[in-house]
Amino acid sequence: MGTVAIVGVGLIGGSIGRTLRARGLADRVVGVGRSAERLAEAKRLGVIDEGETDLAAGVRGADVVVVCTPVDQVARDVLSVSRAGGPDVLVTDAGSTKGAIVSAVEADPEALRVFVAAHPIAGSERSGVAESRAGLFDGRACVLTPTARTPADRLARARAFWESLGMVLLEMAPEEHDRALALTSHLPHVTAAALAATIPEALLPLAAGAYRDCTRVAAADASLWAAIFRANREPLAEALASYRAELDRFAIALFEEDPEALASWWGRARAHRLAFVEGAAGGVVGGEPKA
Amino acid sequence: MGTVAIVGVGLIGGSIGRTLRARGLADRVVGVGRSAERLAEAKRLGVIDEGETDLAAGVRGADVVVVCTPVDQVARDVLSVSRAGGPDVLVTDAGSTKGAIVSAVEADPEALRVFVAAHPIAGSERSGVAESRAGLFDGRACVLTPTARTPADRLARARAFWESLGMVLLEMAPEEHDRALALTSHLPHVTAAALAATIPEALLPLAAGAYRDCTRVAAADASLWAAIFRANREPLAEALASYRAELDRFAIALFEEDPEALASWWGRARAHRLAFVEGAAGGVVGGEPKA
Repeated sequence: MGTVAIVGVGLIGGSIGRTLRARGLADRVVGVGRSAERLAEAKRLGVIDEGETDLAAGVRGADVVVVCTPVDQVARDVLSVSRAGGPDVLVTDAGSTKGAIVSAVEADPEALRVFVAAHPIAGSERSGVAESRAGLFDGRACVLTPTARTPADRLARARAFWESLGMVLLEMAPEEHDRALALTSHLPHVTAAALAATIPEALLPLAAGAYRDCTRVAAADASLWAAIFRANREPLAEALASYRAELDRFAIALFEEDPEALASWWGRARAHRLAFVEGAAGGVVGGEPKA
Repeated sequence: MGTVAIVGVGLIGGSIGRTLRARGLADRVVGVGRSAERLAEAKRLGVIDEGETDLAAGVRGADVVVVCTPVDQVARDVLSVSRAGGPDVLVTDAGSTKGAIVSAVEADPEALRVFVAAHPIAGSERSGVAESRAGLFDGRACVLTPTARTPADRLARARAFWESLGMVLLEMAPEEHDRALALTSHLPHVTAAALAATIPEALLPLAAGAYRDCTRVAAADASLWAAIFRANREPLAEALASYRAELDRFAIALFEEDPEALASWWGRARAHRLAFVEGAAGGVVGGEPKA
């Protein structure tokens, strides 16, 4: 694969670097970031071969550039890379939302020529290069969101790149991706944080497994998630409305005389969860491993 | 401890039996249940020494009787045990709500004389004796809800009993317990199930860790949880109202011009979760272990 440059060496970028190096997929892995100190740490941890704080210098000569910065910075970074990189460079990203990024890139002919949008669906509530690991992407889903304007050769190379990390590829339109992820990822983050905010700290000695798991992702970085929510406002607001309608149905069943009303509401929810457990046992769904 | 009888040998009752036997705390552990077949399985698994389908016969001669039936059956079973048991019997329970149980028992002089209400805060989304294990209660909180009418000697024995299983004791009024658990346990179950119900099965290949953890407890038994919700309607409705107010605050922040609004909402939620993580590392909070 030659030289791979990773712009933004945190949990996701760092895990890409580790995976490339662990699998011997690249001749050289260059990390690009704002902090020389954090890049030195990444090098010391074996995540990258070398670090570079100057974006243009870092991506010069790279065959593949993966932009792993926060979603509100991805499009700008892709545009910069498309100017600094060579004529044959493939640029891809790891942003959690796709519509706004793809629109911005497609409005720029130079960037459009080299870019394939991607979302590797793997992560953790912990961020930073120290949390990165080579196994993060194993068997997980990666969504590519090419459009009719995406260059066919770059798309083929992007597929090969993400598959080489051990991911299972899916392809859909950017807007379809954003509506789906609003439900499967952004909404669970909102419900987890709302739950954590609701429960007074004084009661935490009475919390157990349900609280622990239902609030885990509320520990995620505030600014990263604020940017994701803002980039996906409308689909997230729709997902939230559907969720609130389910809470309404529960609240009605709670005060029904018929004791079957609650059990029936619960049974429908339970069936979805069991479908997920079954799917996780058999294939790509299930999210990243716990540890 | 002499003979301990467990009425209802499922996940909780079974784990009590296993713990008593693993720690050599009782001379004899008798399981009482409706199904001879399931009791035979419990005996085969080493959970109990013997099984008995007749309640009166099962609790005769027992020094301690633990009622582990669904919350809507606990009071009735405590009343039956108080008539069938000997004059020195201690009767305690493991119900997830306490107000209705304590009221019903205290309306009955015979039952009041022998009973101490308890809630061992440990569990799993899986039910049944096959899921029981000896370590379920290790280091977990157990809430006793004695009132001014609870006999002092029975309270002392109940404390000793639950502590011997490895639990950390807390004591509070039944109504205080129910308001707290509505927030720390019942609400997370509702949010998990509502989330599972909201997300279409077709999108599950795009679900990852957030979905996985936020919906885990939606796999719990429908009738057990319907009974818990019904026994705790008013406190749960209040908890749900607080939670919906947090969702309102999020929805407002989502459309604010100020990008700090979302980060600030998230930051408050995150602080609660981090307090929990810190508490879990240092002591009793944190819920049952994963595996």
